[in-house]
Amino acid sequence: MPNKIKFHIDDNNVALLTLNDPDRLNALSLEMLTEIHEKIKLINSGTTNARCLVITGEGRGFCAGANLIDTNAAPSESGNPMDRDLGKGLITHYHPMLIDLKNLEIPVITSINGVAAGAGCSLGIIGDLIFASDKSYFYQAFKFIGLVPDAGSTYILPRKIGMARAIELSMLGEKISAEKALSWGLINFVYSHNNLMQETMKTATEIANGPTVAYKLMRKLYWESLGNDFESQLNAESKAQTIAGKTEDCFNGVMSFLQKKKATFKGK
Amino acid sequence: MPNKIKFHIDDNNVALLTLNDPDRLNALSLEMLTEIHEKIKLINSGTTNARCLVITGEGRGFCAGANLIDTNAAPSESGNPMDRDLGKGLITHYHPMLIDLKNLEIPVITSINGVAAGAGCSLGIIGDLIFASDKSYFYQAFKFIGLVPDAGSTYILPRKIGMARAIELSMLGEKISAEKALSWGLINFVYSHNNLMQETMKTATEIANGPTVAYKLMRKLYWESLGNDFESQLNAESKAQTIAGKTEDCFNGVMSFLQKKKATFKGK
Amino acid sequence: MPNKIKFHIDDNNVALLTLNDPDRLNALSLEMLTEIHEKIKLINSGTTNARCLVITGEGRGFCAGANLIDTNAAPSESGNPMDRDLGKGLITHYHPMLIDLKNLEIPVITSINGVAAGAGCSLGIIGDLIFASDKSYFYQAFKFIGLVPDAGSTYILPRKIGMARAIELSMLGEKISAEKALSWGLINFVYSHNNLMQETMKTATEIANGPTVAYKLMRKLYWESLGNDFESQLNAESKAQTIAGKTEDCFNGVMSFLQKKKATFKGK
Repeated sequence: MPNKIKFHIDDNNVALLTLNDPDRLNALSLEMLTEIHEKIKLINSGTTNARCLVITGEGRGFCAGANLIDTNAAPSESGNPMDRDLGKGLITHYHPMLIDLKNLEIPVITSINGVAAGAGCSLGIIGDLIFASDKSYFYQAFKFIGLVPDAGSTYILPRKIGMARAIELSMLGEKISAEKALSWGLINFVYSHNNLMQETMKTATEIANGPTVAYKLMRKLYWESLGNDFESQLNAESKAQTIAGKTEDCFNGVMSFLQKKKATFKGK
Repeated sequence: MPNKIKFHIDDNNVALLTLNDPDRLNALSLEMLTEIHEKIKLINSGTTNARCLVITGEGRGFCAGANLIDTNAAPSESGNPMDRDLGKGLITHYHPMLIDLKNLEIPVITSINGVAAGAGCSLGIIGDLIFASDKSYFYQAFKFIGLVPDAGSTYILPRKIGMARAIELSMLGEKISAEKALSWGLINFVYSHNNLMQETMKTATEIANGPTVAYKLMRKLYWESLGNDFESQLNAESKAQTIAGKTEDCFNGVMSFLQKKKATFKGK
Repeated sequence: MPNKIKFHIDDNNVALLTLNDPDRLNALSLEMLTEIHEKIKLINSGTTNARCLVITGEGRGFCAGANLIDTNAAPSESGNPMDRDLGKGLITHYHPMLIDLKNLEIPVITSINGVAAGAGCSLGIIGDLIFASDKSYFYQAFKFIGLVPDAGSTYILPRKIGMARAIELSMLGEKISAEKALSWGLINFVYSHNNLMQETMKTATEIANGPTVAYKLMRKLYWESLGNDFESQLNAESKAQTIAGKTEDCFNGVMSFLQKKKATFKGK
């Protein structure tokens, strides 16, 4: 049984992963990271019926970032705290989870119920779709403790909001509201705090009843796009379309379209 | 004589290409794609006086995307419709045209007079400048039939509106209005439906009387920019500037500037 | 003593570089470029106490771009002005300065006090943070003289405002106001003209009292991000975090955070 997260797959094939250390605003301990990673691997194993993953936080915050008093995350071999290696914890515990999350076989929605700070901000903005409470905010807190943004922030931010705003958030450590994040294109939807989970689950259910194979190919295309030139990306699209076009979901989708009906997708 | 498009070069050196299958909202049949491609190749042959290309649609729509009942586009060798290869039609008919359009020797303006859906959306948003009617909308319809965005959508979208909004449009299949597309930076201008063509042609004429060599180099620089590091892009700029700087248009432009007059450009 | 710029490092470790040819709206002569470059090299030598660089312009303009009557910038070996090579001046005088500015060891703020045109626009938008007067504007004037955008414009623009708006500015040569530039994400802050320098110096002082090593690593991460895939960028982050995590500033920052105090950073 996980200790620092809750995990459940509902009857609509939505997997709900809740960061569950509310007393620490769900700060990312190594234990929590390991538990998140286990569930991501479970989904990618294809042995569950999950067709959409939702990540949210228990209590007042989404995720307050790395747990600074978790010294396991930054070992110092000499015992001198000045020798601790903050890059090492990233490599051993963050990156494998983040890479498997990037390669997720199903869409992922992050539902930001409160503060998303530091590495918690990185986790929040990695969603394919990002829903946020009107009480939430995003906070690149790294500079206040002499660090650089990590856990993928420097990859995601310039690709979602451009280089000027990415540097601004990181250098000045401003807290930006969900509304501002929405206007910048960092996130997709803002709802009143009380409606956040209901709206998130509504869209998650819609996605979980969508063309899962096409969704998987789609998110891969977008993750790879900025590294490809036009010709390479066209090739990637046609390869993906060959696969998508042979799914039952596509066959049924086209038939339904021609009959002007709404398609029912099975995810294969 | 083309059958599915209209094509005309006016006295101002503006080439106007009109998708012309209004009963099908100008859906992209293989015949239409071939005809578009022929005209693009004609322009790139340098044998016309065209100095700006405008692409628009006849009737109510700009382009409704791939013609789903055009089975030639997705051959199934076995005869079993589940075996059809939707990637193949992209490779044979879409990509060669799109690559030649990307490499166009003159600027291209798309003028979106109505719905731009699926591959028609891809064609609409490939313009160097995009003018849209206030009645038009953009629609990544692929997911409704179990497919992935194609015809360059996954290349263009994240480069114009960022990764979050690109994924949102593709996963949710939202119709976005011209106004929203403008606010997101997907398109450049919105005009009332009745004024769209007049405004488009006004700017097209201005462009067609501009420094055609510089424009050609400019659009190449921007298409290549995101694949280059800073040093490589600076080199590309200086190579382009060497060429542009030796044109008559540059010589006349500088002279006119120093004399505080408006330059007359010949396109060479 | 420099002739075309002013340069001064204040008691708060802010280096202020002022383009100082106000009668020509600070147009970039080769002499001015050389003087700018000398100061950038001085900062990168690590022999000064500068921890933040501010670049602004004397008088009414920020920078009017290349000095078109400075024929040294575009040598014509034959003596025929049609043979002048405008790419050569970029390679010899602009690029080495711009590359060293990109690789600056400390953050750079540009403070746009008036028109930023042509290569002056390029210099203006290269700042990590960009402050602008409400009277300033940005102007890709190249097309009016038959040229392509240079001095890094075609690198910076699509990364800050996306490809559609970048091409629009370059092809149409629109003057865009500071307000519009802000709404597009091209710049970070707009202030009333009279308050611009005060606000710029306030933030510059804050930055100059920040974690200088982390800032240096941070700006490098963002400059490199769009050329990296996710895994490579995660690796770059962890390498940077290892370095940042061993600085005194990080050690003090974490201690202060845990004690709920504001950290004092020494820049090492």
